[in-house]
Amino acid sequence: MALMMYDLAGADDEFRFSPYCWRVRMACAHKRLPLQTLPWRFTEKDRLPRPNSGTAPVLIDGDRVVADSWQIACYLDERYPDQPLFGCDMARAHTLLIKYWVEKTLQPLALRMIIYDVWCNLHDKDKEYFRQTREKRFGKPLEAIPADREQLVIQFRNALEPLRATLSDQPYICGASPSFADYCVIGMFKWAATVSPFELLEPNDALARWLQESLERLAS
Amino acid sequence: MALMMYDLAGADDEFRFSPYCWRVRMACAHKRLPLQTLPWRFTEKDRLPRPNSGTAPVLIDGDRVVADSWQIACYLDERYPDQPLFGCDMARAHTLLIKYWVEKTLQPLALRMIIYDVWCNLHDKDKEYFRQTREKRFGKPLEAIPADREQLVIQFRNALEPLRATLSDQPYICGASPSFADYCVIGMFKWAATVSPFELLEPNDALARWLQESLERLAS
Repeated sequence: MALMMYDLAGADDEFRFSPYCWRVRMACAHKRLPLQTLPWRFTEKDRLPRPNSGTAPVLIDGDRVVADSWQIACYLDERYPDQPLFGCDMARAHTLLIKYWVEKTLQPLALRMIIYDVWCNLHDKDKEYFRQTREKRFGKPLEAIPADREQLVIQFRNALEPLRATLSDQPYICGASPSFADYCVIGMFKWAATVSPFELLEPNDALARWLQESLERLAS
Repeated sequence: MALMMYDLAGADDEFRFSPYCWRVRMACAHKRLPLQTLPWRFTEKDRLPRPNSGTAPVLIDGDRVVADSWQIACYLDERYPDQPLFGCDMARAHTLLIKYWVEKTLQPLALRMIIYDVWCNLHDKDKEYFRQTREKRFGKPLEAIPADREQLVIQFRNALEPLRATLSDQPYICGASPSFADYCVIGMFKWAATVSPFELLEPNDALARWLQESLERLAS
């Protein structure tokens, strides 16, 4: 039986954009595990199987339910050890820091640039919920948040300097081929590119090669 | 024969502070390899054995010379595989990103706060060289660089959020025990604490526990 994932969807059922769900999609592609997805919206908390943390992704594998992209990655590596996401315990531990680098440093900068685009793509049933929770968090209307986008994008690109330096020494974050640490960063870029036309990277950024080759490997 | 390292020294021969040399010192302590050090100053380029990149650390192991803290770590793990610094190839690849996170994000912020303190601790023969090269890089007198220290320290502490989140889930960056990725970050804190009384962390910062326990493990 294929794995099944509750996957955040936008106005259209087929519009999927969550950076956390992208991680799981890429992890399954990495392991060549078939994955089916169910569209889900922010306000459909009651539809999620338990246990969950109130948001997607939630993975169902037979009678097993696993919530949270990190827990899902750890579960997949234990349950389906071929094509590991983590080469050893230390690599898994390092990936946690890289995951938090994305979540605490990179993604908050990106969110401030594209949050209004996220809202525009939501299903009507989610729009009021998203606006209220995010405007409370940021203390201003969604429309006003990206006002300093040209300034933020400089900060964002600077924050990627450690990654550029790494990728000038080796092909992927995980070494000779991409794995979950790469997917954590790529999930953010896929999310942003899906919801917004705003270019987070300059066209000639060295990261473009890494991003494209990682995705081609998963698709092949 | 013990390993020998050219180690950046200050006014006093025994005053050692380079964050890169700290990494090597910790890597050797991790592997229980005796390490002797030779005091060296910035302006003594001609004293370094070859090959070198014009700065410390340079490691001598019998007739082998290895320069650069990252190359030294990789060399030590290959030559002395017990108590590995990297649990697997993927863990080594991840460590490179973490090393560059320190060098491209954290350390530049820290340097701008303590650069004048660094200069105060240098040997007289290095003071003019350091002032000229760094004032050229920063475009202002050393004394003027830390003017916005109270502002920078907030940025610096925010930039550590990924590490705090990681250490709330696991004891060390490398998992159950510290290793080279931890030492890359700790080298920066040792460097700063050695040259400057300025407190980079708040006294109750959760990172203090990690820092202290990592150092106690190496000393025991």
